[in-house]
Amino acid sequence: MANVKLSIYKVNGQDYEEFIQNFGNIVENTSLCAAAVWANRPFASFDALYQSFCTFIDDLPLHGREGILRSHPNLAGRLAKLDALTAESKSEQSQAGLNIITLEERETLEKYNSKYREKFGFPFVICARLNNKDTILKEIKARLANSADCELKTGINEVKKIMLLRLKDLTECGDAKL
Amino acid sequence: MANVKLSIYKVNGQDYEEFIQNFGNIVENTSLCAAAVWANRPFASFDALYQSFCTFIDDLPLHGREGILRSHPNLAGRLAKLDALTAESKSEQSQAGLNIITLEERETLEKYNSKYREKFGFPFVICARLNNKDTILKEIKARLANSADCELKTGINEVKKIMLLRLKDLTECGDAKL
Repeated sequence: MANVKLSIYKVNGQDYEEFIQNFGNIVENTSLCAAAVWANRPFASFDALYQSFCTFIDDLPLHGREGILRSHPNLAGRLAKLDALTAESKSEQSQAGLNIITLEERETLEKYNSKYREKFGFPFVICARLNNKDTILKEIKARLANSADCELKTGINEVKKIMLLRLKDLTECGDAKL
Repeated sequence: MANVKLSIYKVNGQDYEEFIQNFGNIVENTSLCAAAVWANRPFASFDALYQSFCTFIDDLPLHGREGILRSHPNLAGRLAKLDALTAESKSEQSQAGLNIITLEERETLEKYNSKYREKFGFPFVICARLNNKDTILKEIKARLANSADCELKTGINEVKKIMLLRLKDLTECGDAKL
């Protein structure tokens, strides 16, 4: 996370490498989003920047949108145990209390993560910072009953929430609406 | 590079993490391609695997295809000087002789790389292993005269050549046609 938050003026003045360094992981492990959105510079506002990312994601072929979900780690999963998450994911999962989960809670979450991935072919994605371990567990159980279409839509919607919060960490975009 | 080349049977038996580990950089710095293509398993053949990647790339929105080109490093550029290329790019650039380039040749290439990027908004991409520093320099000069549409098409075609050679390094797909 940057200490000094970026103004839109500063963002528009960045060269390609700086832009990717800042926004390459705005969408978890999917730097192609930032590489594509670069084409839309200069951005009139942070909302325009945010919407550029949203439009690019929405315009991806079906498998691309699924691929974005697949590029997310399981919550409290193997990568978390190995301390191999991206810095952003690690911080977010901690904020949801997933770093102080009991063995039983972890096993329950792993069971539902597996069921979810098996049913839909992509992992359960939720904006951890807008949840806690109780609401996450409640949500994964409820969402397991949905159709794949519905879950793709819901998952991508959560990706956008995660993205906006990451954008707020990096920039002065506090006024953008969630 | 793997020492033992993968059979299609082995590829189809891989779990998601292994698949991404093997094919996540088949398209330079764009693991979303492998994350998307995962949906098409099992693959009837290596040709089917290769075509899945090609179809995913071709179906991307315009800015996504440009983003794929932008995810490639400049040939003999800053990242090469810093020894910060991906393992695949480093090996490929060496095979083209770009690691033993003279200062003058490097400056010429840098000049044309800059002109190219300025004109098209994405870097000059060429399959280094099917070229050498002389043909690369000849090509970049010639391609600078083309339209952006033409160069996007040519660049993506080169990405597919690079991809197929990387696939051949990793797998038993020697029969696939270039």
